[in-house]
Order: sequence, then structure tokens, then C-alpha cells
Amino acid sequence: VDERTFDDVLAALRADRQHGAAELARRTLAILQQSAADMPAADPEEFHLSAGTRGRALMAARPSMAAIGNLIGKWVACVEAAPGRSLASLRAAAADCALKLIAASHEASVQAADHAATLIGEGKTVLTHSRSSTVLLVCDRLRDADLRMIVTESRPLNEGHAVAAQLSDWGVPATVITEAQIGLAMADADLALVGADTVCADGSVVNKAGTFLAALAARQQGRPFYVCCEGFKRAARNAPPPVLEEMDPAELGAPGWLGVTVRNTYFDITPPSLVTTWITEEGVFTELSKESPQE
Amino acid sequence: VDERTFDDVLAALRADRQHGAAELARRTLAILQQSAADMPAADPEEFHLSAGTRGRALMAARPSMAAIGNLIGKWVACVEAAPGRSLASLRAAAADCALKLIAASHEASVQAADHAATLIGEGKTVLTHSRSSTVLLVCDRLRDADLRMIVTESRPLNEGHAVAAQLSDWGVPATVITEAQIGLAMADADLALVGADTVCADGSVVNKAGTFLAALAARQQGRPFYVCCEGFKRAARNAPPPVLEEMDPAELGAPGWLGVTVRNTYFDITPPSLVTTWITEEGVFTELSKESPQE
Repeated sequence: VDERTFDDVLAALRADRQHGAAELARRTLAILQQSAADMPAADPEEFHLSAGTRGRALMAARPSMAAIGNLIGKWVACVEAAPGRSLASLRAAAADCALKLIAASHEASVQAADHAATLIGEGKTVLTHSRSSTVLLVCDRLRDADLRMIVTESRPLNEGHAVAAQLSDWGVPATVITEAQIGLAMADADLALVGADTVCADGSVVNKAGTFLAALAARQQGRPFYVCCEGFKRAARNAPPPVLEEMDPAELGAPGWLGVTVRNTYFDITPPSLVTTWITEEGVFTELSKESPQE
Repeated sequence: VDERTFDDVLAALRADRQHGAAELARRTLAILQQSAADMPAADPEEFHLSAGTRGRALMAARPSMAAIGNLIGKWVACVEAAPGRSLASLRAAAADCALKLIAASHEASVQAADHAATLIGEGKTVLTHSRSSTVLLVCDRLRDADLRMIVTESRPLNEGHAVAAQLSDWGVPATVITEAQIGLAMADADLALVGADTVCADGSVVNKAGTFLAALAARQQGRPFYVCCEGFKRAARNAPPPVLEEMDPAELGAPGWLGVTVRNTYFDITPPSLVTTWITEEGVFTELSKESPQE
């Protein structure tokens, strides 16, 4: 991963709309694993400097996604703590740090999904919004447990279609709706289940725009609203307020009109009062400790 | 309007996604006005029979829209009450009934919009969903009163784009968003304003799917939620529960997947507890009488 390739990778990470925060966090770690092996550096000191620079650039790329900042922060700390007297041993240690964090993140998602699947149980109809890899793990666990899914298309880029395709492959019956139909469709569901881009210290959930509406509809219809994600997505208590990324308005496909602005805010924030249960690898919580695990 | 043309007109009415209930109700009356002039009938009795048949067919075409049923019901009653000793005088009376009802419907919308514009006042930012001709009348009234609009695209057919185009013509600054962004965008608005397809006897509002979510977001963000429409849209107390029309799933543009159903429910129902104010030609109401004006 030379400088030019790294810049390309960074641009691709910023532009990615198809993958959720957990997948993107692991991808950034994979980039760092590769960087550890081949990033230009003359000696250990230069390696530490470059590792820090690349780490910070990746951390800043998707400010709505705490998992990226948290996992890369852990990688930087892991590299700094590596003994690495020689450049070669430092490269090996840094790559190993990345691999272990990828595995830890994946394992956390799997465990969170297991907890969620146990909580949900057999024969349920679940409404989800956007495409969360952790929610898909839950669907995978429940695919022989008479699961039915209601899936939003998830404008503007319709990543809900990828969820529908996966469910179809697994033989899980599903219904695809527009976001506009969430209000009444929630009455046909037993519960709502979403992933998260970030869970703030107070339990607020940053996730794809529309999640807040699904949570409001769930409360109105008397349905539980579950958030399932790995603990790495938890923002620190002293973290700045979440940044809600604005993407290219052209994604909406609207014509241009004089005096009319098209907005494409990708995320919204669901207040903790609308969340019934947060599910992480650590278990099922109806209230979140103010002490974030990232502190 | 011979039988064949009438069938075409009926099909077009059923398929129409661009016009709101008020406009469609007036269009059906225009069809009946034309039918009065040239509908085949040998004598007054045959005319009455055909008028009733056409009226009932039009009334059944858009079950989510009470205004169509109400206005055509009034037309049928008006025709039945017409003296019309000769076929010619009956034709003239029936056409006149239709014209008067079109004028009454239009005048009611104008008056409702006037009340709404007065209530809203200067310098407000208003979020609307879907395309209501009455809401556009309100925007027209307020276009020199420092109005700003937030307009949803209104999937699946994006009739919000037509609203944006009109606002652009009028020089009203506007922002176009996806439905998914309603939750946070409501915080940028002073209030939400929508039209209605039907206002049920209990004050529930049948309107384009997504209206219910806008009302939930308005309550959550502490913003008033106004419904503005002519009184002809009020369903009778003894009316059957509102029918929420399902349209062609192909409108969503989703690929087909085995085992996946695509749903395109066009309307939803907003409970009266989420409506701050109903505005009709009769004024501004914070509570609706259970006695519908259509009874």
C-alpha cells in the first residue's frame, strides 16, 4: 500500500455506501495490516510516524462511525506498545495487531448476533432498516426458526435490496417497503431490529437516516426497538457530538431547480428513550452504563 | 363521454399518482359534467339510471379519497332532485350540479388555505410531505411572507419534485429530502403542514404513506402538525374504515427475488392524537366534532 494506493483506498472508504460501520472498520484494519507489511519506512521511528499518520487519516474518514475510530485507535496503541526493536519485527507486530482486532471485531459481532437471536426467538416478524452486517448475522441464526423480515429499501442507494437478496438466498420470507410505509408496516412486525454506526455514551444511536422514524413508529405501535452491534461502536463519554455525514445530493436523482437545495444527510440520531434494548457481545441491556467500554 | 371513453377515464382516475384527492374529485365532477351533456339516454328515466351507474363507478375508483365519494354523492343527489321534465333540461341541470360542486370544492380549498396562511404567518419554515394542491395554495399565499419549505421527495413516484418545481417558480426557497430524513429535518422546521385524502370522523387523517411518520417526528421534535383540506374530505361517521390503496409494486423499481414480496401501500393513517390542528374552509380546529359535516 504505497501513498497513492492509500489515498485511493481512503477515497473509496469515504464514498462507500453499501457497507455498514462494522464491515468498514474491519476493512480499514485490513488496509493497516497491509500497510504494516509494505508501507515505506527506513527505520522503526519512521514506521511509527507513518502508522500514526495513516491511522489518523482512516479514523477521520467516516466520522459518523465510532467503530472505525475506536478500532484504529486500538491499533495505533497496539503498534506503539509493540517492542519491535527492528523494523521487520515492528512490521510483523503491527500486522498482527490489525489481524487480532479484525478477529475481535468479528467475534464481537457474532456474539452480539447470538444474543439477539436468543432474545428474539422463533416465529417472529422483524422490521429492519438499512443494511447491517450484524442484523444479517441474526437473520442467519434465525433462518430456520420461522423468521419473517420486513426490509426497507433504504433510500437513496437502496442497500435494503442487498438485504432482500441475501434473505431470498437463505429462504427467509421478506417484504420490501419504502421508508414511507414504516409507520403502518411496524404494526405487522413483532419488533424492529437495527445495527448502529455509533452508540453514543448516553445510548443515543447514530445509524442510517430513517432509523429514528422506525424507532418512533415502533413506540407508537407498541413494538420493541432493538439495537444490535459490537461494543467497539460505543463512543467514549468525552467524545465530541456525533457528526452526521452529508453525502452527494446527486444520489437522490432529483432534477435541479433554482433556489431549491437537495439534502442527503446519511445518518440520524435515535434518542435512548426510544431504544428498548441494546444488544452487544456483552449481553442484552435495557439501560446503558454511562461508562463507555471505550474509556 | 361514451361508454368506452368513460372506461378509459375511470382507468386513468384509478392510476393517477400525481394529483391529490381534491384535484381528482374535481376531475371526476368534470367527467360527470361532460357525461351529463352527451351520455347516451333515450329519456329522463334512462338518464337517471346511467347517471347513478357512472356516479357509483367513479365513487368506487379511489376508496382512500373521501372527497370523491362525498362530492359525487352530492352530485347524484342533486341530479335526482332536479325537476328535469325533459331530457334536455335534465342534462342541463346535471351539468350545472357538477359545475357548482367543482366551484364549491375549489372555493372551500381556497378558504382553507387562507385560514392556514393566516395561522402560519410570516417567516416560517414549513415541512410538507407529498403533493397537496391545498398546501400549494398556502405556499402561494405566503410566497412573499418569507416562507421556506422542506419538501420530501415522496417515494415511489416523487411527486415532491413537482412541489419543488412549483416553489422554485414562485421563488420560495426550498429543501428537498428523502422521507428517511424527516426525523432530523423536522427540527429545522417551525411546523409540518399536509393535505389529506380523507379525514375520518374521529379526526384520523388518511394521506400519502409517510404522513404518519412526519406526524410522529413533529411530536417528537415539539413541532405543530397541521392538516389543511376542504370539508368535503371528511368521511361520514358511519363510513366504513378507510381503504388504504395498494398500488403496483413495480413503482418501487426493486428487482424481483424469490420469496420476497414488494409492497406499495400508498396511504397511511395518522391518529388524531398526533394532529395539532385541522384547518378547513370553516376555520381552525384543535378538536374535530364527531358530527361530520357529510352527515
